[in-house]
Amino acid sequence: MSGWEASRVVVTGIAGGTCAGKSWLADAVVEALHPLKVALLRQDDYLWPLPPEVREQPLLHDFDRPEATDWERLESDLGKLRAGSAVAAPRFDPNTHDRAARPRRLSSAPVVVVEGLLVLARPEIRRLLDLKVFVDTPADVRLIRRAHRDLQQRQRSWPEVVEQYLRFVRPAHTQWVEPSRQWADLVVSGLPGDQPCLDIVVSRLRKLLHLPST
Amino acid sequence: MSGWEASRVVVTGIAGGTCAGKSWLADAVVEALHPLKVALLRQDDYLWPLPPEVREQPLLHDFDRPEATDWERLESDLGKLRAGSAVAAPRFDPNTHDRAARPRRLSSAPVVVVEGLLVLARPEIRRLLDLKVFVDTPADVRLIRRAHRDLQQRQRSWPEVVEQYLRFVRPAHTQWVEPSRQWADLVVSGLPGDQPCLDIVVSRLRKLLHLPST
Repeated sequence: MSGWEASRVVVTGIAGGTCAGKSWLADAVVEALHPLKVALLRQDDYLWPLPPEVREQPLLHDFDRPEATDWERLESDLGKLRAGSAVAAPRFDPNTHDRAARPRRLSSAPVVVVEGLLVLARPEIRRLLDLKVFVDTPADVRLIRRAHRDLQQRQRSWPEVVEQYLRFVRPAHTQWVEPSRQWADLVVSGLPGDQPCLDIVVSRLRKLLHLPST
Repeated sequence: MSGWEASRVVVTGIAGGTCAGKSWLADAVVEALHPLKVALLRQDDYLWPLPPEVREQPLLHDFDRPEATDWERLESDLGKLRAGSAVAAPRFDPNTHDRAARPRRLSSAPVVVVEGLLVLARPEIRRLLDLKVFVDTPADVRLIRRAHRDLQQRQRSWPEVVEQYLRFVRPAHTQWVEPSRQWADLVVSGLPGDQPCLDIVVSRLRKLLHLPST
């Protein structure tokens, strides 16, 4: 890989609390940069498979703590994409709580986006990022979005949602997610209607890519 | 009423967002000061009765905006208690959304507590307060408490809870409740386990009453 090609890869990390709007922003960046190719990595895909004895009761598992994620693999994949190589990224199946049998093949791309709760909290990930974005959405709005998702898509009950939120999600947010905001180059709003944040992120990426602004 | 007696009445206001823990703190203060008599006023009791045409659909009514409360009556009652007089306070029935037929008679007391969303937001109330307390509880925790109450005690559905919260409760919090924190002498935590806040409020009241600390 020549230094010229590698230098063209711009890597951005998008962090924020549960249901802050990280995925939405990542997908919107991919769309806005089209036809430029973007490789998108999600921290959730790097979750360690649950031990079989815990799979029956996933609500008792803490997915939010740093140790739940295979950071070595994420760092390695991010490094390869940054160097202009393709990767075979893992995929986590939220139904089986296991890694999917077939990895997700990502070809090299001039832009790499990695999104997830803790991507700004980890120094080994941060040092690979050219642009660090934190999506800031009020806790009550994030909780409402999460409850909607869990009640509707995951057939959970309200007591289950609250139990998991208060036991794992909220403490991890306070301890790791919220403090990682300090590392952000950009803090953007994840409230509905705050589309300007997308423009700001995309403009910044275009500048880092030495592309003309649109 | 002599100046001496009036000067013994200490009035404290307890404000904060929905389900921040205002009522809990007010009740705990009453209990902690026992056998000293405390007159307790609640902003909720001063809500204007709903017009008959709205009573069938109370979820469409904005109880959180300042205009929903009869401030003139609350100011008058608070002023009377402060001057050492008894009052006949209104009572709001949350089932009928009307004032209860019989008022609540409050005799004069050396301590008066008034608790409610907006008691620090209103200048006419603030000027009657010797101690201004704001109960500060994170928005997601307050929302969980509110949902519990509405789901269990008021037979509401989760979509109804969210609709009312996002339409009325949250905007009123942002616009009026949260900014009123600036007027507080004391900002105390309403998180479970934060009992020290009660001690602080009670110590301060005992000092204002020239009572020995316990």
